[in-house]
Amino acid sequence: MISAQYKNERIDLSTLSTKAPPGLTKEGTKSELKSNIKAIGELQDKLYAQQRHSVLLVLQGMDASGKDGAVRAIFQKVTPSGIKAKSFKKPTDEEMAHDFLWRVHQHTPGKGIIQVFNRSHYEDVLIQRVHQWITEETVKKRYEHINNFEKLLTDSGTVVIKCFFHTSKEQQLIELNERLTAPDKHWKHNPNDFKEREHWDAYMKAYEDVFYYCSPEIPWHIIPADNRWYQRLILSKIVRETIENLKPEYPPLKSND
Amino acid sequence: MISAQYKNERIDLSTLSTKAPPGLTKEGTKSELKSNIKAIGELQDKLYAQQRHSVLLVLQGMDASGKDGAVRAIFQKVTPSGIKAKSFKKPTDEEMAHDFLWRVHQHTPGKGIIQVFNRSHYEDVLIQRVHQWITEETVKKRYEHINNFEKLLTDSGTVVIKCFFHTSKEQQLIELNERLTAPDKHWKHNPNDFKEREHWDAYMKAYEDVFYYCSPEIPWHIIPADNRWYQRLILSKIVRETIENLKPEYPPLKSND
Repeated sequence: MISAQYKNERIDLSTLSTKAPPGLTKEGTKSELKSNIKAIGELQDKLYAQQRHSVLLVLQGMDASGKDGAVRAIFQKVTPSGIKAKSFKKPTDEEMAHDFLWRVHQHTPGKGIIQVFNRSHYEDVLIQRVHQWITEETVKKRYEHINNFEKLLTDSGTVVIKCFFHTSKEQQLIELNERLTAPDKHWKHNPNDFKEREHWDAYMKAYEDVFYYCSPEIPWHIIPADNRWYQRLILSKIVRETIENLKPEYPPLKSND
Repeated sequence: MISAQYKNERIDLSTLSTKAPPGLTKEGTKSELKSNIKAIGELQDKLYAQQRHSVLLVLQGMDASGKDGAVRAIFQKVTPSGIKAKSFKKPTDEEMAHDFLWRVHQHTPGKGIIQVFNRSHYEDVLIQRVHQWITEETVKKRYEHINNFEKLLTDSGTVVIKCFFHTSKEQQLIELNERLTAPDKHWKHNPNDFKEREHWDAYMKAYEDVFYYCSPEIPWHIIPADNRWYQRLILSKIVRETIENLKPEYPPLKSND
């Protein structure tokens, strides 16, 4: 039950399943998800006490691929003091007047903190490329700037986790339509999301390039996202294991001298 | 009357004069300084109108090498809307909890703006290195991060001007003592500045390394600083010529369609 990781390998998203593997069920994996959620809460408490590392969780995916819901689900047991979530929307005029990493860098986590990026600096080589707002030469330069930027964060004790929620075009349509029918989801409806579907293939190609060019040190996790329970299970597992690898510990009592 | 520029060359600061060249006088260069100051004001107005480029002026130098005074002098004709100055002091706890470029990146200029850094990200490979708060391995990594960072800025239309005010140890003592005697300079007195003088040679060595490792694309200007009038003359010339090279122009009237 391990998610795909890609490291300098060309991948073809159309060959990767967007569904949970056969044999697994929501009921059968419920206790594992619950255990992961509990562990993440406990691990974060140690992370915060120790003030040595920080975690940056980058979530990317097409519209309605479950980013908000996944964040809500897996960080239930984390105190708000220890976690921050930032959604990157259309840049403001002030943000556009700066380099593309300017607005992103401000939200990187301080020591002891988990920071979630709901969309991220990768939008600057995805939506901007798909719509040809930038040249291919700029795209190449940005890949390099992104890699340098993530290296800077890594060198200062931040663990960067990069996840792509891999959903099918059919499932997206189901989710988008639900926003039209469910009153508690109306606020998420954006007519433009339906229009953006026309660029699906270009997005998949842009993502494949991101996985190839932006994973020299930090691999991408491609997480099947059509079954929300499975998506959350895998995401919680990745976050839990990553923090466990940091071996966070409560520091000893300070001496009185 | 051109300042020294260094580009991937090992230099020995002790061989470079800290004084104005013989033959030049404050009186004799007064009109040139005045003309530069006026030109900078006019050029900045076009820069602001055009919203295409920005300028980042990085000023480094030992204590009392005239950084504040130079900024005050050469930007007299620039409207406050078009310029920002940021002094980087001892990092706060919040800043220390992030990578060393985090606090700096936030203050990079938006399009149309001149941003002055009074001290900068270079302190993180100067004072921190001289006092051995960081390892030599970290110093090397930081050189690379700095170069990558400045490349990011350059790629997005920011011109970075890096200046070192080269002053003698003797002149520094005169200036520091003046802070003790002149009532309008008392507020600048810091007993620690006298103590920091003990590390003079280590600072010179650290600066020489900076000039060598951090100038692959953007050269350093080493400006003789013992004679304040000469320091300002050269700085104003560099800033003027740099902005002139950008050829800023007022944009044409927007059509009414």
